[in-house]
Amino acid sequence: MTDFTSNLKPADTSNGSEIYLRERSQSLLPVQELANHLLSQDGFLERQERILKIIEAEPLFSKTNQMNLSRPDRYHLGLARAKLARRLTDKHRWNLEDQKMAEYLIDDVSPYHLHMTLFYNTIQEQGSEEQKRYWIPKAEKFEIIGAYAQVRKYLMILVSPGSPLTLKQTELGHGSNVRGLELEARWDSRNHEFILHSPTLTASKWWNGTLGRTANHAIVVAQLLLPKRNFSSGSKIEYISFGPHTFIVRVRDMKSHLPLPGVVIGDIGPKFGYAPMDNAYMLFHQFRIPHSALLSRYSKVDLNTGEYSKPENPAVVYGTMTFVRSNIVMHARLILARAVTITVRYTSIRRQFRDRDEDRDSGPEMAVLDYPTVQIRVLPLVATTFALHYSARAMRELFSRTRKQVDSGDFERLADLHSTSSGLKSLCTGLAADGIETCRRALGGHGYGGSSGFVQLNRDYLSKPTVEGDNWMITQMRCDLELD
Amino acid sequence: MTDFTSNLKPADTSNGSEIYLRERSQSLLPVQELANHLLSQDGFLERQERILKIIEAEPLFSKTNQMNLSRPDRYHLGLARAKLARRLTDKHRWNLEDQKMAEYLIDDVSPYHLHMTLFYNTIQEQGSEEQKRYWIPKAEKFEIIGAYAQVRKYLMILVSPGSPLTLKQTELGHGSNVRGLELEARWDSRNHEFILHSPTLTASKWWNGTLGRTANHAIVVAQLLLPKRNFSSGSKIEYISFGPHTFIVRVRDMKSHLPLPGVVIGDIGPKFGYAPMDNAYMLFHQFRIPHSALLSRYSKVDLNTGEYSKPENPAVVYGTMTFVRSNIVMHARLILARAVTITVRYTSIRRQFRDRDEDRDSGPEMAVLDYPTVQIRVLPLVATTFALHYSARAMRELFSRTRKQVDSGDFERLADLHSTSSGLKSLCTGLAADGIETCRRALGGHGYGGSSGFVQLNRDYLSKPTVEGDNWMITQMRCDLELD
Repeated sequence: MTDFTSNLKPADTSNGSEIYLRERSQSLLPVQELANHLLSQDGFLERQERILKIIEAEPLFSKTNQMNLSRPDRYHLGLARAKLARRLTDKHRWNLEDQKMAEYLIDDVSPYHLHMTLFYNTIQEQGSEEQKRYWIPKAEKFEIIGAYAQVRKYLMILVSPGSPLTLKQTELGHGSNVRGLELEARWDSRNHEFILHSPTLTASKWWNGTLGRTANHAIVVAQLLLPKRNFSSGSKIEYISFGPHTFIVRVRDMKSHLPLPGVVIGDIGPKFGYAPMDNAYMLFHQFRIPHSALLSRYSKVDLNTGEYSKPENPAVVYGTMTFVRSNIVMHARLILARAVTITVRYTSIRRQFRDRDEDRDSGPEMAVLDYPTVQIRVLPLVATTFALHYSARAMRELFSRTRKQVDSGDFERLADLHSTSSGLKSLCTGLAADGIETCRRALGGHGYGGSSGFVQLNRDYLSKPTVEGDNWMITQMRCDLELD
Repeated sequence: MTDFTSNLKPADTSNGSEIYLRERSQSLLPVQELANHLLSQDGFLERQERILKIIEAEPLFSKTNQMNLSRPDRYHLGLARAKLARRLTDKHRWNLEDQKMAEYLIDDVSPYHLHMTLFYNTIQEQGSEEQKRYWIPKAEKFEIIGAYAQVRKYLMILVSPGSPLTLKQTELGHGSNVRGLELEARWDSRNHEFILHSPTLTASKWWNGTLGRTANHAIVVAQLLLPKRNFSSGSKIEYISFGPHTFIVRVRDMKSHLPLPGVVIGDIGPKFGYAPMDNAYMLFHQFRIPHSALLSRYSKVDLNTGEYSKPENPAVVYGTMTFVRSNIVMHARLILARAVTITVRYTSIRRQFRDRDEDRDSGPEMAVLDYPTVQIRVLPLVATTFALHYSARAMRELFSRTRKQVDSGDFERLADLHSTSSGLKSLCTGLAADGIETCRRALGGHGYGGSSGFVQLNRDYLSKPTVEGDNWMITQMRCDLELD
């Protein structure tokens, strides 16, 4: 629509592009060299440029209207975007790193997110060869859509009972898993099946992404209960708990998409952020699953005797949690970089008031960034962004090195990796989350506006100090190691 | 819907009501006495109880689904709620304090909010007797819907040029109003009209609540330009600026509700919070308004000669801004009280892990509130809530006392009131805004959920450190007074 405002221009002192040119011409930084130094590793810059062009050309990824949508429409938009991303993946033959870059640039969580991450990875890491042959192709072709359901995130690290990480967990004293996990997987030795059962309301799975509306399968963590051997026949069967174990379970009908009888699933409703994600609750009532549902790369229950076995010294323990945390650290630097970039640019252009020590009544007002009260808030965060960058790089290198050692049977550095990733996850997400808000406020009124870029950034990112280990809790893991 | 979950109960250790009873029975605090001490002043408790019953009985005020709505639906819900509140006001003959309590309990901003606050108050305080007789009844009957439009909030305090507050502002050196305010109100001495004109894009009004879609009238602050007297006829007329002045202007057609020709208005779109509010942008193009549009209790332009006059020593300067800020301080304590109440209750019930220094494997897990790492975050905020309460009371008393002095012509304490309200506004909103987020994170994962009560609380309240004077800026006013 054209009206008289179409011909209006900003007042002389507020021409953004000219101010940028002037400010940039005054800097001696070799910008391209610095960019290469920071981000050329693993081809980040090349990949970003290549994929951004493709993403920008798709109207479905435009953010213009998304904040106006209802939550159901936001979910549907999320599905449509995820499907388009999948089609683009096929068309451009994107590898996994390309896909991650696309997800980062689309800047909106996919309702399928858990399918190709935790669901897929858990089968890969905990499934037997036979299970992998059966499930992996189905997952890759999206013939099934999977989610990941557990009560407490810290259980992710319990690859198998008796593994070094489990021992470390127990040493740290964080929770009694046996009691903490209420969902039961009871072995029925007559029918050779497991029975999933939620004995209480607090046994409900909660927060499980992709499960509320999207998935038809789920990785389910439950307490494995096996009958006490040699019980006298006729008496009531007693069960022994073998701790948390991982099952792959079909939870919805493949045609009607309704939860199967004995399963209740629902969307937990709107949240602080992540509008397109369908986080779930889920409960089971005497729900029977086959013997093959137990992911049995490490722990097995004998089909005929019901006997439990696990390898004495499992050869491979990757520590999914540690990997996830190191990704979170890598992510924090990009998030804070975005926040400080918006803030430095905006406050360079925005003019407010004249210098009160200058005795004049005319001429341009001062750039907001030139005020010491803005500088002391924003400039340390620019420095923090660089600190996060180098910390993330060091974390990633520690992870690769330790993984190699673990692969060759050397577990010595594993506890250090675990506690370092915990400490850094807490530190970096705390700095980034608080930094985003400091930047937003430095923008003044416009920081509260939808066009600032800070609304969804804040809403989504404020989950990070809590997820994958609450920052206040996991910091203690690092402290423990220091005090050992 | 009934299914097997309907009969499930929480695990033994998580029965909320029993835990509350036990915790409360252990406290020696005389709860009712404390409540009376804190909140019986001005009948707050009685009023809250009486009005809450009425609000709770209306399904339209239920919050259950509002977070799922699109922004247009959220706006319509806001309109419907505001209309219902108005009908309830008539039905129950609510006075102004009752209406404020209802607004607080409805806990959702009304799209009409600016009509009965800043629009109405500005006419009351700055209108001549004749203007008040004309406009006030129309506003009270909602025959017109008004908004308030200015570029920079700090101008609110400029009741008239030359008033003590204006002088103080100028001394503080905060901005050159003449240049800062770009919208012009030029006196056309031939037609005896003012011409409103936005010469640049940056002259656009922005953020004006109630104006984006709802209002048909607005209080408009513009730079008053009068022709230089005694110019030689034939030459180009020169204008002199008399600084910001306040006009009441019809901006939309009373039948079609479309902006009048020469006016462009729009909704600035989604924001961080305040979803039901239609914040606006507005520009004028050679838009003519009558001589009577200038609110002329203090400053006047002679209809025939175009001569400017203002009282030498305006008798009454209330300082709307100071009043608004003292309200913000009163509000902060209630907001933080709500946040700490939710947090203390939830963390008393929520159990996580056993005490690691206790050598046992069974029995109940620890209440989250019993962890020192939770206590050091939450308990100081409980104390802060009380500190905010007493500060707000002191602020309110200072305001009443100073207002009485000003009414009797004594302006001595006005600068102190102004700087105290600035300092306290900054301190209290900062403590409350940061406190809300600290509480939210102390809730762990559930603090991110929609049912925590923290989503809208956070989204709406995070505007407060910025509105009515940015916290970093206005703190300096208090410092200046201390350093004088």
